[in-house]
Amino acid sequence: MNNNKIPVAILGATGMVGQKYIQLLENHPMFEVVCVCASAKSSGQKYIDVVGPKWQMRTAIPDSVAHLKINDVFNIREVSSKCRLVFSCFEIDDKDLIQKVEFDYAKTGMAVVSNASANRSNDLVPMLIPEINLHHLDLIHHQQKINNLPKSGMVIVKPNCSIQSFTTPIFALEKEGFKVSQLIVSTLQALSGAGYPGVASLDVIDNIVPFIGGEEKKTEEEPVKILSKATDTKLVLRTDLKISATCTRVPVVDGHTALVSMKFEDKIPTEQEIKDIWNNFRSDVKEFELPSSPAKAIKYIEIENRPQPRKDRDRDKGMTCTVGRLRKCNVLDYKFVGLSHNTVRGAAGGGILNAEVLVAKGLVK
Amino acid sequence: MNNNKIPVAILGATGMVGQKYIQLLENHPMFEVVCVCASAKSSGQKYIDVVGPKWQMRTAIPDSVAHLKINDVFNIREVSSKCRLVFSCFEIDDKDLIQKVEFDYAKTGMAVVSNASANRSNDLVPMLIPEINLHHLDLIHHQQKINNLPKSGMVIVKPNCSIQSFTTPIFALEKEGFKVSQLIVSTLQALSGAGYPGVASLDVIDNIVPFIGGEEKKTEEEPVKILSKATDTKLVLRTDLKISATCTRVPVVDGHTALVSMKFEDKIPTEQEIKDIWNNFRSDVKEFELPSSPAKAIKYIEIENRPQPRKDRDRDKGMTCTVGRLRKCNVLDYKFVGLSHNTVRGAAGGGILNAEVLVAKGLVK
Amino acid sequence: MNNNKIPVAILGATGMVGQKYIQLLENHPMFEVVCVCASAKSSGQKYIDVVGPKWQMRTAIPDSVAHLKINDVFNIREVSSKCRLVFSCFEIDDKDLIQKVEFDYAKTGMAVVSNASANRSNDLVPMLIPEINLHHLDLIHHQQKINNLPKSGMVIVKPNCSIQSFTTPIFALEKEGFKVSQLIVSTLQALSGAGYPGVASLDVIDNIVPFIGGEEKKTEEEPVKILSKATDTKLVLRTDLKISATCTRVPVVDGHTALVSMKFEDKIPTEQEIKDIWNNFRSDVKEFELPSSPAKAIKYIEIENRPQPRKDRDRDKGMTCTVGRLRKCNVLDYKFVGLSHNTVRGAAGGGILNAEVLVAKGLVK
Amino acid sequence: MNNNKIPVAILGATGMVGQKYIQLLENHPMFEVVCVCASAKSSGQKYIDVVGPKWQMRTAIPDSVAHLKINDVFNIREVSSKCRLVFSCFEIDDKDLIQKVEFDYAKTGMAVVSNASANRSNDLVPMLIPEINLHHLDLIHHQQKINNLPKSGMVIVKPNCSIQSFTTPIFALEKEGFKVSQLIVSTLQALSGAGYPGVASLDVIDNIVPFIGGEEKKTEEEPVKILSKATDTKLVLRTDLKISATCTRVPVVDGHTALVSMKFEDKIPTEQEIKDIWNNFRSDVKEFELPSSPAKAIKYIEIENRPQPRKDRDRDKGMTCTVGRLRKCNVLDYKFVGLSHNTVRGAAGGGILNAEVLVAKGLVK
Repeated sequence: MNNNKIPVAILGATGMVGQKYIQLLENHPMFEVVCVCASAKSSGQKYIDVVGPKWQMRTAIPDSVAHLKINDVFNIREVSSKCRLVFSCFEIDDKDLIQKVEFDYAKTGMAVVSNASANRSNDLVPMLIPEINLHHLDLIHHQQKINNLPKSGMVIVKPNCSIQSFTTPIFALEKEGFKVSQLIVSTLQALSGAGYPGVASLDVIDNIVPFIGGEEKKTEEEPVKILSKATDTKLVLRTDLKISATCTRVPVVDGHTALVSMKFEDKIPTEQEIKDIWNNFRSDVKEFELPSSPAKAIKYIEIENRPQPRKDRDRDKGMTCTVGRLRKCNVLDYKFVGLSHNTVRGAAGGGILNAEVLVAKGLVK
Repeated sequence: MNNNKIPVAILGATGMVGQKYIQLLENHPMFEVVCVCASAKSSGQKYIDVVGPKWQMRTAIPDSVAHLKINDVFNIREVSSKCRLVFSCFEIDDKDLIQKVEFDYAKTGMAVVSNASANRSNDLVPMLIPEINLHHLDLIHHQQKINNLPKSGMVIVKPNCSIQSFTTPIFALEKEGFKVSQLIVSTLQALSGAGYPGVASLDVIDNIVPFIGGEEKKTEEEPVKILSKATDTKLVLRTDLKISATCTRVPVVDGHTALVSMKFEDKIPTEQEIKDIWNNFRSDVKEFELPSSPAKAIKYIEIENRPQPRKDRDRDKGMTCTVGRLRKCNVLDYKFVGLSHNTVRGAAGGGILNAEVLVAKGLVK
Repeated sequence: MNNNKIPVAILGATGMVGQKYIQLLENHPMFEVVCVCASAKSSGQKYIDVVGPKWQMRTAIPDSVAHLKINDVFNIREVSSKCRLVFSCFEIDDKDLIQKVEFDYAKTGMAVVSNASANRSNDLVPMLIPEINLHHLDLIHHQQKINNLPKSGMVIVKPNCSIQSFTTPIFALEKEGFKVSQLIVSTLQALSGAGYPGVASLDVIDNIVPFIGGEEKKTEEEPVKILSKATDTKLVLRTDLKISATCTRVPVVDGHTALVSMKFEDKIPTEQEIKDIWNNFRSDVKEFELPSSPAKAIKYIEIENRPQPRKDRDRDKGMTCTVGRLRKCNVLDYKFVGLSHNTVRGAAGGGILNAEVLVAKGLVK
Repeated sequence: MNNNKIPVAILGATGMVGQKYIQLLENHPMFEVVCVCASAKSSGQKYIDVVGPKWQMRTAIPDSVAHLKINDVFNIREVSSKCRLVFSCFEIDDKDLIQKVEFDYAKTGMAVVSNASANRSNDLVPMLIPEINLHHLDLIHHQQKINNLPKSGMVIVKPNCSIQSFTTPIFALEKEGFKVSQLIVSTLQALSGAGYPGVASLDVIDNIVPFIGGEEKKTEEEPVKILSKATDTKLVLRTDLKISATCTRVPVVDGHTALVSMKFEDKIPTEQEIKDIWNNFRSDVKEFELPSSPAKAIKYIEIENRPQPRKDRDRDKGMTCTVGRLRKCNVLDYKFVGLSHNTVRGAAGGGILNAEVLVAKGLVK
């Protein structure tokens, strides 16, 4: 083990998102996976023996992880003795249990960066897209106080994958003074978002499914939280932004597409202004020069039939949100198409970027 | 040839829609295909020799058509000597030429039922969904007068396939007094809509294409025309309905899905009222008991993840519009998902139903 | 209930094959589904309540079945009080249990027509493709004697879906005196063969899986049994036919394709002889004029890129085996491509045809 | 331009394979693309202006190429004034013309590394898989003499993409003394092999196509040529190896799968011997340490349902042939499944490796 790197654990290391974390953390300059956690039934076995046959990534299991013994995810004491940060990507349905376990980890002094939705509704848990709401991290001190956490213990969450294809572009416009009041969003979501085995092939060969359980509510609520202001002690949920979402599943491996209509509160930018804002968008997080931070968080593409999942999802290692097809909307003001990589920007890559931010801000040492 | 049936010609008989017409007209009780027309280069050859290797239908080429010699589509005199009605599904791009040719056919005393978009913008050409705007046929007399057509000559058109998944449900609500003022529609359209070879496989394997040339304009304009009133001499285009569309291509063989948000002008029905209106919808055209008329033009389905293209497109021989997922919209009033079979209801099946209506109304004898 | 029809039960009625049976038996002239059986946990509930959300067929659940109460599949006494024949399409893995249960049903005097593989290795259980080995039914008397079955009790099985795309064509050649000694077969099998949810979508989008558990052994052994002779008391397994199979899964909804190389024992037919034999093939079963018997059991198609699953699987209601691409093989003698509908001919349709044969032969009354 | 790199041209630079060459040659340590050639109609325009909308690669057009002006492919004089080597991936059908043009380039003193099939049947043109038949390059001196080529002028070809999934594994066995006499091969080929637009989506959604024009002949003949011996002046085509191929198209973006049965001439290795030979295979070309040479040319994978295209094609940058599922064949001796990346190893990557070999051997300076 490299002594300069922060030792991390993956909770739910055998699932699809866990695998993606392990793939993306191979040779990461700041973090080293030293602990892989899963349910009791695989505990004690070597990672490769359990995951080998169901490994879904295109690159091989890193040697440094392949031979790790799997820890029971509830054996918090042992994990906390080895790690300073955990990436939580539980694949169980018990929301209450996940809420509790994540805070139990935090209580031992660990920073928890979570992909699970369990703690997203907790207003003291920052839901972070660092290009947008870095200042929500100011809530952590109060979170620690209220929950009796030690100084190094905290829980932050990453939002749902379905919102990453449009939330940063909306923020970029608001940052320049063009307040958005209404969004109607239709998503065409990739299969990997449902894990493995996930969606049955018979549901998406010569077919699409115009429904994803729970997804529309998340898509309507989470951007509002992220685009709200926070003080040191509370989140001030804005009420001036209404979102309506329809979420569908399409036969695409990776890459969520969003078809978006938007209405501005008062001032309406020109088409050229919007494109310029997107192409020139530069977030505060850029100054940290983090390994997972994309060169451009937003890329506007002029080709008329783009963005497309297979052709645009990998832009800047899958961390860029690609937008295109900006045009007038007959009902609201403008329409556009957004795309982001759901298992990179929308899951493990986004989680890692969040953890890098915690380090850059001195919250994790 | 059966002397009691009306002899018909197919213009563009070798293309995908032409093939669908031939398939659906096999053993049709009212019409008999006696003439298949295509470009000069296949003229004179047997239909089966030209189309055999590229026949896309699941049933075989009907024997009665297989051995017909192909006519040159511009040899109007010969076609008109054999037929009383033509189904026009030209696959050429020259809009002006198609406009002219269709009226040239009408001038010889033939009824032209067209799938082409060329004459859709002509206000004296009824764009017919018979469950909705049967009374637009009252324009035909004036059309004949203005264009110097004989009594049996006329041109009517069928709207674009992309609008059939939501226009009849909207009409049903308006018919019951709930005027709709705004629609935001996202379509997930099937591959067969682009003909053959049409969409390249590399564009829709592990991919979707969020753009279809010209489709959004049609989707925004055609329902307005259909849902407008007409007098005997002119169409009165309504201005109180705004539609915004985003059209995408997905890897589905047949069946266009529409994700729709709608706003009512003043009176807003309850969810139950909407479902009841849809399930009880009965159009005037039902009384004619036409062979291609579905038992129900609209079917509301309660299963939460439906309608789905492969599972719902064939309802009632592909002529029913299936709707589902009715729920509140945070921005407009309600959202729903609609689905219809694009090459049946949205193309050949819709054209045949229109022709049956012309016969039922005594316009074709 | 129609008194002239034979009342039948479906064991495993909630699974994919069970659903297909129910779909295909709607309005069947000889059989009426009066009993739907599944595991204890759905027992007592209405069929539509249990299956509605997971019904995979394109036509609706027949009204006559929708409101049947589900029976526990192990409540043999009750089932046998209502039915004279059962279609067995168990979806459990316990082979020993299925073997026993099927014979327990037979002991109550019921004819069991099974899709399960459990009893296929029993030499006294005819594995029937009626166009090929009708005379294997002569074994039933001995089967009844050995197993102490009453006169109306018996078990027959349908072979695996993977072999239907080539076994009848091979038989047709052998029937005309061209003995086949070697077959190398590669199958490209449809997703519906794995049931629902079955194959994960992530395994077959931009991918194929070159492995199906247990399938190659069945594909190599079952045709040998079917193509063997039987006396009244025993099956005489032939040893002069060697088959080697590679079975793969491809993203096709229905329709198994087989790529076949074959070697003849001594006399080698010409290409034209082979095509003539296939096109003129007429089986003994044709004389019974059974409802599920196809007009042609084999259809040779001359188009160079056929047969193809979506375009050829539905030939003659899915009961025909379509062959094409006959040409010389550099290693064995000839190569061809065969195709059959796996859930019709290869599953429920084949089972129903077998049951019709039992009636026609007077074995079920 | 970097003076240490060899300036190269791409003939057919706008097509799919041309694009792949440009992608793979970005930052190549030995070659620099200075000339992009296409048909006269795009000649004189900037590469990005012509190719931008149809660029199919996931990475962007390299800046160094984007602004090159396209040369007319027949303007040989100009190209030869700038380059020392050309990669030929013509997308025209005129075989005679390509044969001539490639030699015309060679006559100006350029080395031509071709993906086209036109010159593959010329016995003096080495068809090179460098891990197998490096010594075929000894023919070049004689090729130059017979065709009056200058010392730096030559033509070599890369074999068809369909054979790369099994030819190197077969060679590895023969190299260890296990002569192979018969191969029956079924391929499941990716869509990218047909270029863009290539295969129509309607042919491969819920479908496969069991035919690829001309592909079976190439698959049967090219491995025989590659696996034959050559002297300095002629190729000695072996007659002891018979191959029979069936080639199919499946809905996979990249990666050709081969299902192979093989028979040995006399000595038959054990399963373990075969696996050991494959895993320990090390070709002579390794000693050159070329940039495109994979760490392992062959990788045997033990997981029972692999290799699979999406999961295995990218191994070692797409240059490794992955094999799996070795088992006895009931008809020949053994069966296995092979997989290689058709546009990398099977096209541009293979061509670049061949060019690197020419440099390593001192044939290009």
